[in-house]
Amino acid sequence: MINVAILGFGVVGCGVAEVLKINSESIAHRAGQEIKVKWILDIRDFPDSPYADILTKNADDVFNDDSVDIVVETIGGVTFAADFTRRALMSGKSVVTSNKELVATQGPELLQLAKENGVSYLFEASVGGGIPIIRPLNQCLAANEINGITGILNGTTNYILTHMKKDGKSFEEALKEAQKNGYAEQNPTADVEGHDTCRKLAILSSIAYNEYVNPENIYTEGITKITTDDMKYAEAIDSVIKLIAISRKVNGKIFTRVSPAIISKEHPLANVEDVFNAIVVKGNAIGDAMFYGRGAGKMPTASAVVADIIDIAKHPDFGTNNVWVRNNDNNILAIGDSMSKFLVVVEAGNIEEAKKDICTVFDQELKFVEIGSKNNQFAFITPVVVEKELKSNISRLKELNSIDSVLNAIRIEEE
Amino acid sequence: MINVAILGFGVVGCGVAEVLKINSESIAHRAGQEIKVKWILDIRDFPDSPYADILTKNADDVFNDDSVDIVVETIGGVTFAADFTRRALMSGKSVVTSNKELVATQGPELLQLAKENGVSYLFEASVGGGIPIIRPLNQCLAANEINGITGILNGTTNYILTHMKKDGKSFEEALKEAQKNGYAEQNPTADVEGHDTCRKLAILSSIAYNEYVNPENIYTEGITKITTDDMKYAEAIDSVIKLIAISRKVNGKIFTRVSPAIISKEHPLANVEDVFNAIVVKGNAIGDAMFYGRGAGKMPTASAVVADIIDIAKHPDFGTNNVWVRNNDNNILAIGDSMSKFLVVVEAGNIEEAKKDICTVFDQELKFVEIGSKNNQFAFITPVVVEKELKSNISRLKELNSIDSVLNAIRIEEE
Repeated sequence: MINVAILGFGVVGCGVAEVLKINSESIAHRAGQEIKVKWILDIRDFPDSPYADILTKNADDVFNDDSVDIVVETIGGVTFAADFTRRALMSGKSVVTSNKELVATQGPELLQLAKENGVSYLFEASVGGGIPIIRPLNQCLAANEINGITGILNGTTNYILTHMKKDGKSFEEALKEAQKNGYAEQNPTADVEGHDTCRKLAILSSIAYNEYVNPENIYTEGITKITTDDMKYAEAIDSVIKLIAISRKVNGKIFTRVSPAIISKEHPLANVEDVFNAIVVKGNAIGDAMFYGRGAGKMPTASAVVADIIDIAKHPDFGTNNVWVRNNDNNILAIGDSMSKFLVVVEAGNIEEAKKDICTVFDQELKFVEIGSKNNQFAFITPVVVEKELKSNISRLKELNSIDSVLNAIRIEEE
Repeated sequence: MINVAILGFGVVGCGVAEVLKINSESIAHRAGQEIKVKWILDIRDFPDSPYADILTKNADDVFNDDSVDIVVETIGGVTFAADFTRRALMSGKSVVTSNKELVATQGPELLQLAKENGVSYLFEASVGGGIPIIRPLNQCLAANEINGITGILNGTTNYILTHMKKDGKSFEEALKEAQKNGYAEQNPTADVEGHDTCRKLAILSSIAYNEYVNPENIYTEGITKITTDDMKYAEAIDSVIKLIAISRKVNGKIFTRVSPAIISKEHPLANVEDVFNAIVVKGNAIGDAMFYGRGAGKMPTASAVVADIIDIAKHPDFGTNNVWVRNNDNNILAIGDSMSKFLVVVEAGNIEEAKKDICTVFDQELKFVEIGSKNNQFAFITPVVVEKELKSNISRLKELNSIDSVLNAIRIEEE
């Protein structure tokens, strides 16, 4: 029998207890032994909980109990969660978590600590909710050199963008709808500014390239500046706008970016709608493989946590050997040095003159895009350019008499 | 160091040697030790092969070599492959294979033999080529009761259907194109009649329900009767036709079926085009998760074989405990007792009279579908009916004076 302690009895922690209960038989079959929840730690009172007899507010109950094999950390954040995770690992207990912030920021040290103590630190639930992605990267695609990841990793922003496109809603209206339906927090910053996606991309990239990628070094841009006009320009070139997390291994350097991007309707990520997430992994043998499903939610996330528990139950040495080395940051390609294609939206009094001037600035013929509803607006598509050069070209455009303003510049992602 | 012997130096066998070579460094890192190809067994001569010094025609070289830990069976078929697999397992060597026919037909006995000898019999590459699906079912989704699988499991038929739809080609024309491009065999029966899909569905279902599903008990219908008109009817209801493998756990019984089916363009499988495969797994905690990628090809398939090798290298007891029990066949729901919705295409001289008669036979108002190009043809959509009742209703339709013929009846899959 394996004894588990759940730290933090919120949505996910509660889901873990529930999954272990409703699927206990098949889980025991797969794990080769029964898995029992021995303790649930939370500072709150749950007087009517069916788990009343195993609820405790005293962390010592958990850490001094030698019969506890696995600690589930579903507290979130990086204060208590970090302390408890360290304490668990140091007392020889494996830790399973859904805490992306902690993994993304302190992963190298926690994995090292796990290794030193001969236990596991697993976090399948930290990215993509229930979608199996960490384990496929570590195991199923182990025969591949991974050279790229492209993903939709945040359900809130994908819901907002989906409804901006489908219902012609503004960002603010779609955000309100998402909040009303429980898909966005009252303070939505971490989602809409891309921070949540950034942490998840840091975790995936660290696994893919066997090298720690610090979220602080990932260029991150949210979706707050995307307008319904931008959506129409994308539609006009048979494309959609998504919040895309991307990372690539380019000439030994790692390039990572979180930003809104225009992708063709033929792209496998284009049909990922509402709160769904999907991740495309590029391997040198497999080519592209995609993983798709609900990126959040109580039961999907809990099912990923429990999959980690089962793996430890089956193979006590599972994942004891994973380490991320915290390098200096020279392995990250600066955003300014990266290459992209852009759709740039401009406002101009004299459209024809503005187009001629833009071609002069870019020193070549460009493709222009118009949407019926706007007389003084159009967009153009740049060639693939180094980003800092684009920035300087946009500054030059702003100085032109023919151009009133540059409204937006959105990357076009073709891979 | 782990020593591997490859039996059968065809496309996949050759790919395995290649993947182990080009990614040797990262594979050794992930496996925790070097993986070396010690022998390659094939009856053919490969005089110019760089592997000349390890090629042998004598199986004893492999089986009498105690240093060989893992045997890769990429022979195919069920004669030599079965004998060699047994011999390997009985001599304490784990076996890794891409041979779906052997796994689907003799899986229970081979898994049992592996267990008795304390070794593994792994077959990630047998379904979905490089797409990780066996391991996710066994591990990542281990916390779930799996209650359904829906998939596009065969690249050849998906390529044919894609080009029938996109280019308006007939089945025969699209098949010829597929053959010309190397996506269909000269004898395409196993693919176009659905047998290949059937075997893969048997394997996935056996894993999902912890109970052996014999491919002989899976109702299987190929795509040879699908016409370009059928494609147009599907288009008229915003749908596409795919060769769909489906299995469900319904009231303790297993329902499985391989057949062409109409799916809405909103269905996650609708955009799986050309030779790509995808599998949707329905779990009671995770909801729907989808796995997508190249379902065949040398390097993707080889990468799945090598992932199995790495797992055995890391955990010598990996998968030693999987068994499939060969039940009597009463656990399979007969196709006639299953429920489906159909689109039925009919030919009639007097369209209005025919429609009236059809509603009488089905005893309710029905939805009719027309495509511009055909004056004497239309389709109707049935409610969800027990299949044997539909069959008897279609017999009744054929006897009606108002109906000249029933051209096709295609299932509509909504889940």
